[in-house]
Amino acid sequence: MTHSKDRLKRIFSPRSIAFLGATNNHTKWGYIVLSNLLNGDFHGNIYPINPHEKEILGIKVYSNLAKLPETPDMAVIIVPPSAVLQVIKDCVDKGIKAGLIITAGFAELGDRGQEMQDAILNLARKGGMVLVGPNSNGIMGISSQFYCTMPPLYPQPGNLSLVSQSGNLAATLSGNIIKRGLGISCYVSSGNEADLHTEDFLEYLMHDENTKVILSYVEGFKDGKRFFQIAKQVARLKPILMLKGGDTPAGANAAKSHTAAVAGADSIIEAAFKQAGIIRVHTIEELLDYSGAFISQPLPKGNRLGIITLGGGWGVLVADFCTRRGLKIAHLSKDTLNKLDKYLPSWWTRSNPVDMVGGMRGKVDKILEILLSSDDIDGIIILGLTGGILELASKYDSLPSGDELGRVAVENFAESLKEVIELRNYYNKPVIVANNFPVGNVEGFEKIFQREAQNIFCYTTPHQAAAAYVALTRYANYLYGID
Amino acid sequence: MTHSKDRLKRIFSPRSIAFLGATNNHTKWGYIVLSNLLNGDFHGNIYPINPHEKEILGIKVYSNLAKLPETPDMAVIIVPPSAVLQVIKDCVDKGIKAGLIITAGFAELGDRGQEMQDAILNLARKGGMVLVGPNSNGIMGISSQFYCTMPPLYPQPGNLSLVSQSGNLAATLSGNIIKRGLGISCYVSSGNEADLHTEDFLEYLMHDENTKVILSYVEGFKDGKRFFQIAKQVARLKPILMLKGGDTPAGANAAKSHTAAVAGADSIIEAAFKQAGIIRVHTIEELLDYSGAFISQPLPKGNRLGIITLGGGWGVLVADFCTRRGLKIAHLSKDTLNKLDKYLPSWWTRSNPVDMVGGMRGKVDKILEILLSSDDIDGIIILGLTGGILELASKYDSLPSGDELGRVAVENFAESLKEVIELRNYYNKPVIVANNFPVGNVEGFEKIFQREAQNIFCYTTPHQAAAAYVALTRYANYLYGID
Repeated sequence: MTHSKDRLKRIFSPRSIAFLGATNNHTKWGYIVLSNLLNGDFHGNIYPINPHEKEILGIKVYSNLAKLPETPDMAVIIVPPSAVLQVIKDCVDKGIKAGLIITAGFAELGDRGQEMQDAILNLARKGGMVLVGPNSNGIMGISSQFYCTMPPLYPQPGNLSLVSQSGNLAATLSGNIIKRGLGISCYVSSGNEADLHTEDFLEYLMHDENTKVILSYVEGFKDGKRFFQIAKQVARLKPILMLKGGDTPAGANAAKSHTAAVAGADSIIEAAFKQAGIIRVHTIEELLDYSGAFISQPLPKGNRLGIITLGGGWGVLVADFCTRRGLKIAHLSKDTLNKLDKYLPSWWTRSNPVDMVGGMRGKVDKILEILLSSDDIDGIIILGLTGGILELASKYDSLPSGDELGRVAVENFAESLKEVIELRNYYNKPVIVANNFPVGNVEGFEKIFQREAQNIFCYTTPHQAAAAYVALTRYANYLYGID
Repeated sequence: MTHSKDRLKRIFSPRSIAFLGATNNHTKWGYIVLSNLLNGDFHGNIYPINPHEKEILGIKVYSNLAKLPETPDMAVIIVPPSAVLQVIKDCVDKGIKAGLIITAGFAELGDRGQEMQDAILNLARKGGMVLVGPNSNGIMGISSQFYCTMPPLYPQPGNLSLVSQSGNLAATLSGNIIKRGLGISCYVSSGNEADLHTEDFLEYLMHDENTKVILSYVEGFKDGKRFFQIAKQVARLKPILMLKGGDTPAGANAAKSHTAAVAGADSIIEAAFKQAGIIRVHTIEELLDYSGAFISQPLPKGNRLGIITLGGGWGVLVADFCTRRGLKIAHLSKDTLNKLDKYLPSWWTRSNPVDMVGGMRGKVDKILEILLSSDDIDGIIILGLTGGILELASKYDSLPSGDELGRVAVENFAESLKEVIELRNYYNKPVIVANNFPVGNVEGFEKIFQREAQNIFCYTTPHQAAAAYVALTRYANYLYGID
């Protein structure tokens, strides 16, 4: 069944919620989630429901739903599994049109749980109520500061949205999104997907103007045909990065007792993802790495790559990786070579990768601009942006300590990154940066990576950078065929 | 040609060195490398050579080699490329038997450079002198505090040794080895390998008692037959983790102008690596991740894996990954299930992965011991070792802040890790831990990861842990066939 945009909008941005299972016991989820919600400064009204309490966390408690002064947009449900059915009845009676069931203990536990889940679903559908979960770890809608999740996580506003059947993965991803300096628009842990499926959320996110990139973890499709139909529409407008769990018998078995998902055969999934334009990833790391590139880079218009490197080995690894995946290491024209000659020592290799032979600082903007302005190159990977040790040392009257070298490397990196961003924006071609200065503390770099993440997402290894670049190219190829 | 153990021993642990190209100009490598060497408190004598200086960095300078009071074990050579031939002549005349040529600008620049390199090699061979490089970024022999490298890097003593044709990669690897809390025995950037090849170093490291695991980056083999012959011998005794660059035409082209390597066809390399028992990796990340497992874990005696997880999604991903690579997700016997029932809630899934349903702290040692003591299980991956949020919250009188939750999670992690190590040691089966608590600061975990790295190397993602475990299994399978 299709759900209207408005209904889902109220799930991510309810104007008011009833909170079933609210408690004053701080070792229960009913307290922790409510506390998280309050700490997030949720914009709407919160009505905790508990027959035995007067006040929880400073908020007035209602003994039951019937007593509420208004009909809330959504019910957040964290009562024991056996009580969920009655709660849904009460919600329907009150006219509540959406429910988030955080309670677990349904289809993922087998036949008996499946029956309970089916009964809940039937009741909700008859009552015109949509459900998220059960077995969800929560929802976030950042625009209304709706941080309604089990772990206390407060990502900043941003253009990533998350749909995950696993609450565990949703938490891991959003924890790492925070650590990497990225931001979120919507987050939903869809759990067992009794009612609303991954595809319903994808459809909603297609229209959410704050969502630019969708990250998703799925273990199984409740309605594969509809999923791929919708995913195909969404993927024309926004990249969907998807990690598929449960694609081996052992993994599928684990998934069944995790979110009650029935997984599909891997080869079918692979083909279907490709056809739908879904960017398949195989690790959490890829999901995060690629999302950073999609959020911060324009798509390449072709598959010819330029590589600028501070060291030979990194350049070789990136050339290998990208070539294996169908990219072309751009041939440098005579004109481009002649221009580069002005800024590089006589013994430079005059080929792509452009090896800066240990010297980059103060020239990277020149080199980068020559390559970006070439019609033979569709995008760039820069490996190392700190300047070499000799150049760093030459800023001092005597040789600085390793820590001091590390400090000035960070400084140079920050300056060069500014130039890179300006040129990238001007030429509107993707420029991916990886940097891993071996000397000194890494914290300085991490801070800059974080600060600039939504503007230009940086990597620490050549493979991360290359894989993210390849993902951009694949999506561009899906959208407008650049082979 | 084979080189005696003693000759190579003197390369990693010279009793005295002549330093050709020493200078008082702090923006030259001749100053920086010498400074790095001094800062490392090298155990042996250092004789800087420079006709125009009296003293450099507080050390007496000699105008030429002939003036030295003894014949040094090795010459470190950082003079311009055109001067190297004469320097080698002087070394041979002085009776020096080993040279490290850091100077670049030889075979990697083409035919003219190759000729120069050949001339140097001929002269050295006639004079009974072995050479490292040219185009090396240096050598470390930690036992004699011989830190003779271009970047100022001071890894602690440990059981990893590095052989890398790329100085860039050698620096990246050793920088990250430091950051991850691991340690090094020997490090050599073999550069163009005019004389000593990767296989010579492998052969030496086979006998180095401090070396337990060898990390290597190669772009090409100068003598493939001999390489594989030696690698096969070494791999029976010590794991060789190897990253091969230049295995695509574009990468090979880059490699040629980088270390003058001629790369082999990828499929041949793959088969040859397998036959020789070399563990092939494809990324810097894998090289580091696997080395941590090999340094800190016993090898599994079979391919049956137990998984303990704090969250369903992580367990699914690890089951998928390991199954795809031929491992068996161990079937839990009735006896094992009954034992586990005592420590897990009634609704636990009674299957492997053992999902701790959000509750682990205070039980992980029980669960782990039950699985480790089972004859049906050869090793364990633990996903999440902090305890769940409910358990952490229950330690407080009221709900702690996210930061405080993060802090106590770190504390619990450290305690549980101790128990894991004890049980792992007692049962002598590999136990790999991944942990990524989404709330609070990561620094606390990073410190523990670092501190324990050589004892038990921990990971932050399920894939890292699974891939490292698979690498252990593959090597065990090569050594004694555990399929």
